[in-house]
Formats: sequence, structure tokens, C-alpha cells
Amino acid sequence: MATATVRLARGRQARVAGGHPWVYGTEVEDIEGSFSPGDIVEVADSRGRFLGRGYINPASQILVRIMTRDRDEKIDREFFRRRIETAWRYRSKVVKNTDAFRVVFAEADFLPALVVDKFGGYLAVQTLALGIDLHKETIVEVLKEVIGPAGIYERNDAGVRELEGLPLRAGFIGREFDPVVEIEENGLRFEVDLAGGQKTGYFLDQRENRMALEHLCAGARVLDCFCHTGTFSVYAARFGAGEVLGIDISGPALEAAARNAARNGYAGVCGFREGNCFDELRRLERAGEKFDLVILDPPAFTKSKKALEGAVRGYKEINLRAFKILRPGGFLVTCSCSYHMSEGLFLEVVKSAALDAGRAARLVEVRRQARDHPMLPASPETYYLKCLIIQAL
Amino acid sequence: MATATVRLARGRQARVAGGHPWVYGTEVEDIEGSFSPGDIVEVADSRGRFLGRGYINPASQILVRIMTRDRDEKIDREFFRRRIETAWRYRSKVVKNTDAFRVVFAEADFLPALVVDKFGGYLAVQTLALGIDLHKETIVEVLKEVIGPAGIYERNDAGVRELEGLPLRAGFIGREFDPVVEIEENGLRFEVDLAGGQKTGYFLDQRENRMALEHLCAGARVLDCFCHTGTFSVYAARFGAGEVLGIDISGPALEAAARNAARNGYAGVCGFREGNCFDELRRLERAGEKFDLVILDPPAFTKSKKALEGAVRGYKEINLRAFKILRPGGFLVTCSCSYHMSEGLFLEVVKSAALDAGRAARLVEVRRQARDHPMLPASPETYYLKCLIIQAL
Repeated sequence: MATATVRLARGRQARVAGGHPWVYGTEVEDIEGSFSPGDIVEVADSRGRFLGRGYINPASQILVRIMTRDRDEKIDREFFRRRIETAWRYRSKVVKNTDAFRVVFAEADFLPALVVDKFGGYLAVQTLALGIDLHKETIVEVLKEVIGPAGIYERNDAGVRELEGLPLRAGFIGREFDPVVEIEENGLRFEVDLAGGQKTGYFLDQRENRMALEHLCAGARVLDCFCHTGTFSVYAARFGAGEVLGIDISGPALEAAARNAARNGYAGVCGFREGNCFDELRRLERAGEKFDLVILDPPAFTKSKKALEGAVRGYKEINLRAFKILRPGGFLVTCSCSYHMSEGLFLEVVKSAALDAGRAARLVEVRRQARDHPMLPASPETYYLKCLIIQAL
Repeated sequence: MATATVRLARGRQARVAGGHPWVYGTEVEDIEGSFSPGDIVEVADSRGRFLGRGYINPASQILVRIMTRDRDEKIDREFFRRRIETAWRYRSKVVKNTDAFRVVFAEADFLPALVVDKFGGYLAVQTLALGIDLHKETIVEVLKEVIGPAGIYERNDAGVRELEGLPLRAGFIGREFDPVVEIEENGLRFEVDLAGGQKTGYFLDQRENRMALEHLCAGARVLDCFCHTGTFSVYAARFGAGEVLGIDISGPALEAAARNAARNGYAGVCGFREGNCFDELRRLERAGEKFDLVILDPPAFTKSKKALEGAVRGYKEINLRAFKILRPGGFLVTCSCSYHMSEGLFLEVVKSAALDAGRAARLVEVRRQARDHPMLPASPETYYLKCLIIQAL
């Protein structure tokens, strides 16, 4: 089994003992035995008691990522099979009315740094740390056995791989296929570009939040900021919006958005405009334009704690503008996918934006990421997507 | 207009200036002018600038409850009409597939201390503070105009009225009717006792959380603790549960639960047992019983900050037992309706219960009260119901 044991320092082990899967180098008292980067090692508390087993990478700030808390569980082919089967069974329960969902959500599926998304019959795979990357072949074999995909695309071009000393790469695993696939979600169809799209090609985590637009759109004039490939826009049209304006800075994303609207028969309802949403929101406000529903789904304004102050200013700005262009009784659907922007802080920012805009506001719902992206109570990092639905009086 | 102006003390006005509707006596610098308890007064900041207008009651810890932030808005019949129409319009948007919902949720509808629930064609009304109680006649008239109910029942037997120096009373407003009414919620029918039930007769705030059981129940053996009149149990049966055991300490509630199960054709699926859920959970664990889904929806274990420690112990205990009787991969739906048990603290308690039970657990969803119970970002008191859906591996 393990060639080395990582012993945690007294006073610095509570988080890991409490179920968090990450061991930082600064929390370690000593390492007994020898290992190579990516090896499976044991983690023990300061008194030498077994805490878990996981993979080690001294090149990463996260020294060990724990894969099992069961002393008798070996990390072998059967381990990956059990984990992936459990993940698959979970999705078959909690995900309905779509052929696109996250099959494996890394730590929250007890498979640290492994992400597997399903789009129609195809899979997009990411192995974002050395210790999981080494098992890629086994994982792919198991995915084929359990899910039987028509094709697999590797999206290991994510920057976080560099923190692990891993090269960036993307491409087909096995036979090639057209990487632009069509998915069906809640009766709507969208194109997803497994090779060229953001992340693994499509934002699966907003699926349930898109459904939450139901009943808010009838006859509404809708503004969809940071609309990307137009998914929220198409849902708004489907839920009865009279007019939808989607804005994004990416031309190619907007072209896909227009195709997605047309594909579902809403080309006449959805219009898209290329532009910087900060500028466009100001422009719409100056022009006296009013909307019944405004959606703000920006990319993460911060990926670090350091940049949080600037991010707060960014979120404040767009939410303030949104309140200013909402009709009385209108709804704001406002999101943040920055982990460092906590739900509490985000609520504060939105509250102060409403106050500055002179609008009474109430919270209709506080939503998170979809159920196929579960969270670990012991690991706040697994909770990253906030979606507030607010009514402005 | 106002006969008196309540001026806030410098350094103690941020909360109210930030949108919170309550002014505590300890936050007041002085009161200029004369007033009688229940009168409408103005609230000003330390420099005398208008902050809002609301009703005053020196007998209450909450000296003033602000009803409007608009200097030009008078508190008259038209005010109540506008507020109730806005509340009604909001529900007509966000509430679907039910004839039972909260029409007015007090502060969150900018009508402090007024609660109006609709059950089928009937209304249950609470005026829980002196300053709103004085307007009861006007409110009832407006409710008749806007909603046109078949009957109205007053449930002013809530203990909080005593904090306002108000008598407890309950009874018909206007013509009498059979206070046991049938409601239809998401295609299921339930009896609601407007006169004898808890609160206003039925827990409307869990409606959307009951729907969240969908897809978790197929073929499942379900335990519904603190089942009251069996609503969660009947939903579980509707969603395909093989067997549901509901437990509650109240005999009359269980009789209603059995009638509710029978009414929907699930008498053969749902069984009910009278008992203390703490004892019954221990007994089930000792007997080695296992469940696929456990629901914990206890009454508030604490209504004060002081009693929080005991409440934490109570929540810990029932959640620990639940984890012990859940099958691998089973689901826990665990609730707290205590405002003082914050979401963060509740998550901590549940996390530590899982740890003590030796179960890996992940959060499927973090839910709150239903949309007809909106929240004010400036007033954390309006957010009270937590509902966590957890999978135990």
C-alpha cells in the first residue's frame, strides 16, 4: 500500500480531521517513507492515527488530496469503478429532463480534481491534478464501461493544471468526432462546443437556476447580461418573455446564442448585442430603457482573495445599474460564481446596490449550483455558485 | 400627518438607515411631539433627516415598525390597498399549482406584523402588533375587495401579541363557516384546520421543499419525523415511496395525517405512529431499522438566543440518529425553522452529526422557505426556515 505517511502537525489538523480533503504543506509535521510525486500516501494525525489515503504532489500548494477515509480501501481500478458508479447512480436520481450534466464533480464525488461532464452521448474529461492525471487511462476505461459514451474529449487546457506542474492539453481520447454536439435540456436544445467552449463547453451548474425563471417571464422585457451562448435568454423566451436582449463581449458566443435561439424557434424574440456589459448597462440607463427582468451572470470577477475588493466594486456596479433599469415589481436574477465572494458578502453587495439605487428589494429565493454539482459540508470550496432572485419594488 | 418624530441616536442608526424596518427603544435619541400607542410617527436620523414612517408602541421592545420610506406616502386606506394589491400580484406570479399560500408576509411585504394566509377560498389573518391591529377593519375590508374570500378567520391567539400588550383572541371575522377546509397543493389534497391548527393552520412555508422530495422517493422506505398532519409523508408516497412511517407526538395531528393519506389514496403506503421522535429515533436505531430517506422537520427548538445551546444539542441528536439509520446512498431532508439557528450554524451541526455517525455526507441542496415567504436583505429575521438535502454515502 502506501510508501509514505504524511503526519499532520498538532493544532493544524482539525480541518482535515473534520472531513476536508485537502492537506496543505504548511499543516504537515513530517513525512515518513519515500514517495514520488503523484503517489498514493497515507495521512495520519499528530499521534499517528490513520485519517485517510490520497495522492501527493509536493509541487502543489495542496500537498495531499484525500481520496478515501476507509483504511481498508485500496486505490485501484475497483476504487475508481465504485466511485464512478456511485456518482452515476446519484445523477440518475437527482438529474432529470436533460442529457447533459456533470457526472463527476471532483472532491464532492470523492475523486479529487476529476471533472467529467456528459453532453448528449459524449463526455468531456478534466484531470486537474497530477495524482489523478496519472490514473487517466483507468478512469477513461471505467467511464467507457459504466457510461458507454460515443466519444470522449479531454479539456485539460485549464490553467489550474499549471499549479500542479502539469502541461495544458486538449483533444480527443480515442476516436475523433464532431466536437460541436447538440444537447437537450428541459425540452430545449443547445449546441455545445466540447473543444472550443468555456470550461468543458457549457455551464451545466446553472441548469436549475434557468428553470427558476419560470413564471417570472410572461410578457416580460428581459435583459440578459453576460449572456454567453444565450441559454438564459432562450429559457426566458420559452417562459413567455415578450422580448429578450442578450449582451456579451464575445462575438463567437453570440453567434452560438443566435443559433440557439433560432434552433428553439425564438429568433424573433431574442436579440443579441456585442458589447461590454458595464458600458451597455450604463448606456441603457442613460437612454431610459426599462426591463421587467434583468439577468446578471458574469464570469468570476475574482479567482483569488486578493482581488476581492475590485470584484466587490464590479458586482456592486452592475447590480446598481440593474436596479436602476428595473420596472417597479420587476425581478433581478443575479449570480456570482466566485468562491471568494461568499453568499453573505454577495447579499451585502446586492443590498447596498438596491439602497444606492433607492429601490426597496426583497429576496424571492437564494439559489446555488445545480444538484449534479453537490457540495461537501466540510469543504466550503465546493460551494461556489450563488444565484439570488430579487424583486425590486 | 405624523404627530411625533422619533430621532435616532448617532452611531445607532445604521441598521434602520440600511433598510431594516425595526427601531428599538435603545436606538432612539429623543421623541419630539406627542403620540398615543399605535399612532403613526415619523422616524428621522440623528440629523433630523426623514428615514421613514411607521407605527409606534412604547410597550414593545420594537418601538417603531417602519411601513414606508416614501416621505409622501400617507398611511391610509389607499396605502393598505396598494400594499395588499402588490402582495397579491407577487403571489400570482411566484406561486403556482396551489390554492393555499401566504398572501401577506408582514415586514417582507412592507406591512409589519400582518400575516394573511389563504386556504382554498378562506383567509386566516393575524395582526401581531398594536399598530397594525388598530387597522384591522380597514385591512379586512381591503382583503375582501382584492381577494373576495368566502370567509375570514382571525388567528390572533399567537403569544407574540402579549409582547405588544395585546389580548389573545381567535374567531370568525364576519360570517361563520366550517373552519376545517380542504386545500389542493400540487395535485394533492389536505385538510387544514383554520381554527385549531398550529400557526394559521398549515405549514405553507415548506411547500417548495416538499416538491424537492421528487426523484428521491422512488421505491424508498421513508421515515418522516415530526410529521404533524403528514404532508411530507403524503408527498413521499406520491413520489413513489414504497413505505412511509410518520411519527409525531400529537394524536390529533396524526389523525389528520391518516385522513390526509387516505384522502390521496396512500393509506396503504403511509403509516403513522404516536411518539416522541427523540425516543423513536433511538429505538429504530437499536432495532437495526434502515431507511432510504429520513425527513426531520421539528418545531423550533429555540425561539430565543439564550436557549440556543440546548437547541444545538437537540438538532445534533436527531441528525446523528438519522445518519445512523440511513442506508448507504440514502437521503436526509433536515429542517430548522428557528431564526436563531443560522444556516451556517445548522450546517455545522449537521456536519458534526455526520462525522460522529462516521458517515461521509454531501449537500445536494440548501433550501429556504417558499417564495410566498420572501425575505428582506436588510432584515435577517425574515429568513428563518432552513432545509438541507443531504446524501449519506
